Amino acid sequence: MYTRPLARLIEHLQRLPGIGPKTAQRLAFHLLRRPKSEALQLAQALVEATEQIGVCSRCFNLSAEDPCDLCRQPGRQGEMICVVAEPRDLVAIERTREFKGHYHVLGGLINPMEGIGPEQLRIKELLQRVGTDTVKEVILAINPSTEGEMTTMYLSKYVKVLGPRVTRIAFGLPVGGDLEYADEMTLARALEGRREI
Amino acid sequence: MYTRPLARLIEHLQRLPGIGPKTAQRLAFHLLRRPKSEALQLAQALVEATEQIGVCSRCFNLSAEDPCDLCRQPGRQGEMICVVAEPRDLVAIERTREFKGHYHVLGGLINPMEGIGPEQLRIKELLQRVGTDTVKEVILAINPSTEGEMTTMYLSKYVKVLGPRVTRIAFGLPVGGDLEYADEMTLARALEGRREI
Repeated sequence: MYTRPLARLIEHLQRLPGIGPKTAQRLAFHLLRRPKSEALQLAQALVEATEQIGVCSRCFNLSAEDPCDLCRQPGRQGEMICVVAEPRDLVAIERTREFKGHYHVLGGLINPMEGIGPEQLRIKELLQRVGTDTVKEVILAINPSTEGEMTTMYLSKYVKVLGPRVTRIAFGLPVGGDLEYADEMTLARALEGRREI
Repeated sequence: MYTRPLARLIEHLQRLPGIGPKTAQRLAFHLLRRPKSEALQLAQALVEATEQIGVCSRCFNLSAEDPCDLCRQPGRQGEMICVVAEPRDLVAIERTREFKGHYHVLGGLINPMEGIGPEQLRIKELLQRVGTDTVKEVILAINPSTEGEMTTMYLSKYVKVLGPRVTRIAFGLPVGGDLEYADEMTLARALEGRREI
């Protein structure tokens, strides 16, 4: 049905998450209709990203440099470390422009079902940073899932003994959300986290 | 926020149709989490598709060979040509396994608003094929849009004078569809196209 190189392109596009056969076909046809340079630039970007991006040896964020931009930024306060599971969580926090400390990317969450224990994550490295740096607060920005809760418990226990405050981001009603439609867990968390006004 | 090669990859992924910033970010992070070979194979597939795929000089379908596989297939009847606007329409027809003739890809539809006249499409080439080959029937498999209707009118006029039957695929209630929810245009077409049983 497809000429061979087209079939191969569709097949590879289909391996991407959320891209089914229809979408893969649409993307492939789109690329072939556009000027050749577009597909070649995408190919080039893929190769460069793959070959140049590694992880920062301090915070373990994805980076082409070591240490990464965020670790080298002079305006950032070393006494706060925000701990996230994945680079995408770091990006979400950075987007708020509210946090001016350093980050630490765990590379996942503790998940015994999948055989991921604390040793598989960058927890040892976090504890080393907390131990040597002048860290005053460790903020855990970790999803409130079962694995997230487990990881949060584990971290808070081992970080606290090293001295710094351990805090966790607030869970509650999202801004723009509606009490009526909020699920029980979210509302329970919102109640639990209530504050004096 | 992103290390440079990552920003570039996300930017290029975002140029694809239906891929917004969130999806582009997700795809990029996915690719960086997988073994390097995956991204490199995708890049390779992009380069090969771009460099090897052209159009068949007979039917103008996308093809790495000329003439294309479909034009060379021995079982296909040369007396029928199915005319489609785009390669994706050809794929849709091929998927039915119901058509055993040849194809002709116009490369678009007549669209005066966008300055696309009959000269911009492979209509001259179609008329040449119809004139020289032993074509008995030309099936127009063209969407029932304004541009599709215009193109269908134009083609039927010029093909008919060369001798062959000109037919058009049927429009009506889709299989699995429901009379109650069908739009008026579809139902009108279904009525109009009614057949003796």
